[in-house]
Amino acid sequence: MARIAVVAGDGIGPEVVAQARKVVDAVLPGVEATEYDLGAARYHRTGEVLPDSVLAELAGHDAILLGAVGDPSVPPGVLERGLLLKLRFAFDQYVNLRPSRLWAGTAGPLSSVKPGEVDLVVVREGTEGLYAGAGGALHRGTPAEIATEESLNTRHGVERVIRDAFARARRRERRKVTLVHKTNVLTHAGSLWSRTFEAVAAEHPDVTTEYQHVDAAAMFLVTQPQRYDVVVTDNLFGDILTDIAAAVTGGIGLAASGSINPDGAYPSMFEPVHGSAPDIAGRGLADPVAAVLSAALLLDQLGHADAAARVTAAVGAELAGRTAGVPLRTAEVGDRLAAHAAG
Amino acid sequence: MARIAVVAGDGIGPEVVAQARKVVDAVLPGVEATEYDLGAARYHRTGEVLPDSVLAELAGHDAILLGAVGDPSVPPGVLERGLLLKLRFAFDQYVNLRPSRLWAGTAGPLSSVKPGEVDLVVVREGTEGLYAGAGGALHRGTPAEIATEESLNTRHGVERVIRDAFARARRRERRKVTLVHKTNVLTHAGSLWSRTFEAVAAEHPDVTTEYQHVDAAAMFLVTQPQRYDVVVTDNLFGDILTDIAAAVTGGIGLAASGSINPDGAYPSMFEPVHGSAPDIAGRGLADPVAAVLSAALLLDQLGHADAAARVTAAVGAELAGRTAGVPLRTAEVGDRLAAHAAG
Ligand SMILES: CC(C)[C@H](C(=O)O)[C@@H](O)C(=O)O
Ligand SMILES: CC(C)[C@H](C(=O)O)[C@@H](O)C(=O)O
Repeated sequence: MARIAVVAGDGIGPEVVAQARKVVDAVLPGVEATEYDLGAARYHRTGEVLPDSVLAELAGHDAILLGAVGDPSVPPGVLERGLLLKLRFAFDQYVNLRPSRLWAGTAGPLSSVKPGEVDLVVVREGTEGLYAGAGGALHRGTPAEIATEESLNTRHGVERVIRDAFARARRRERRKVTLVHKTNVLTHAGSLWSRTFEAVAAEHPDVTTEYQHVDAAAMFLVTQPQRYDVVVTDNLFGDILTDIAAAVTGGIGLAASGSINPDGAYPSMFEPVHGSAPDIAGRGLADPVAAVLSAALLLDQLGHADAAARVTAAVGAELAGRTAGVPLRTAEVGDRLAAHAAG
Repeated sequence: MARIAVVAGDGIGPEVVAQARKVVDAVLPGVEATEYDLGAARYHRTGEVLPDSVLAELAGHDAILLGAVGDPSVPPGVLERGLLLKLRFAFDQYVNLRPSRLWAGTAGPLSSVKPGEVDLVVVREGTEGLYAGAGGALHRGTPAEIATEESLNTRHGVERVIRDAFARARRRERRKVTLVHKTNVLTHAGSLWSRTFEAVAAEHPDVTTEYQHVDAAAMFLVTQPQRYDVVVTDNLFGDILTDIAAAVTGGIGLAASGSINPDGAYPSMFEPVHGSAPDIAGRGLADPVAAVLSAALLLDQLGHADAAARVTAAVGAELAGRTAGVPLRTAEVGDRLAAHAAG
């Protein structure tokens, strides 16, 4: 039976994670869950962000479910780099998966796009690029200061994430992969990404492919998000594009994500894209849908595609049944989703 | 009298530039314009992109007005790097200026945003960052390949563009500047940008400031573009954000831009953001508004703020008077704009 590490985290994290666990228990009874106390609260109490001993314990699990970490009281970057990015790199989570759907019953910001028309997934590279931490500064604080940031890209890293994108496209109806980069300016990395993309595409004649510059893709995500199926891109472009995709499908409040090590050598981590929302924390008002959808990605990754599909269907029914303006209760949504998914 | 170099370029370039010149002549009679033949056509005829002799001649002008360069028949990158980027760097055009307005009479893609509500300008750094051309590859074409791209940032380069943004904010009603970066990941460059921003902000107590990560800004440009006044950001982030801003204000068809050397040591260049649109070229159907708005930026840069304002007002009247679905004739639009601007 699956062993899951749960990092409920800060703010609304514990509230939404409780619902995600409720739903997982409903579709896959017997999952063993261990709670880990990480995030702003622990940082303030002990000064620790992610002790090595905890990292080692997390490594022993099949997957990690995270609610949200962060609080305005923590210096910016501390938890992002010390916890989220550290896990992505330590656990070689090279596929950062971010699906975006405009669900029936929800309203996106675009007048030309109808619910049901957008269903895309961004496969963002998670372990390379400008996130590698390569860079430095000279003459800091003087008029002569220079600061550099280096994007590191390997054939190894680029090929494995592109392969993952094609594999996902094959499991989808439209079977289309869009490579997004900026080959006209970033010629070295762009060439590596393009050549690798073409080589992998040649092995997948049943998959349609296209290439777009990142600026064009950012624009088309706003004007024609319907055109995308699977988008594969580098770490930083993926960071930006997934937030645009979330925005055009109703906001990060509904967006799920997975930081995945597809090889299974390390646990993958699943978390809602939204933050800890301290302003509404503890009041039972947070929407648990993004956390529940993240749990569905977790189930899928662990090989329980049926259970994942039932959870996703439950979310679809939940959102289709909502009336705009009617406030929701976190626990009630969780109860409904669990009941529906259990079927 | 001002001496302008005109690069009409390819596709619809000559058509829209002709209207821009018509309008400039109407508000500022006596401008001396010299045509330069650059772009896909010259490249195919002679193999030349930007001969040194032409670069030297361009340097002798007060400004450059460009229509559009490019054609699918030219290998990607050749004209972008050999012409557009080369000019930006050779002429130290460190302010890449991109205003976005949702004009009365036009419809943007966002249902929550009404015409008139969006009026922002992105001040994008134009001579540094990932556009510096620093990077390389090793073991190219083998499984061991690595490719790097380096973002180079200097206090000199960052400070001058931030100063320009604050100066522009002071001339606007809301007097607000948003710095966009990714300081939580790009810590070295992010720190340089933040510290410089704070130092310049301290000299401008009458200007409101805020900071946003690039992913959040990409999202807010879709959900609340009204919140922005002046946005200052690095070269690559600016490339992406300006296309989002264009998308939410009706598309790149209306977007103007300037690549500006505010010191006046070199000529600044003004061009519509749209491309050469070979599919509609030569038929008199292209909308010259973006080219005309680019000419307004040119007039403003050369110190003719009144003339620039009259051109902008003419565009406002033109767009407000349009009926959706009625095809336009390039030359007629130019005539109307010239007549209105001449007043
Ligand atoms: C918190 C931050 C480091 C992170 C990122 O940039 O990847 C976030 O924006 C995300 O998209 O998960
Ligand atoms: C053509 C390309 C090099 C250019 C850029 O990336 O700056 C374009 O996208 C722009 O925004 O002017």
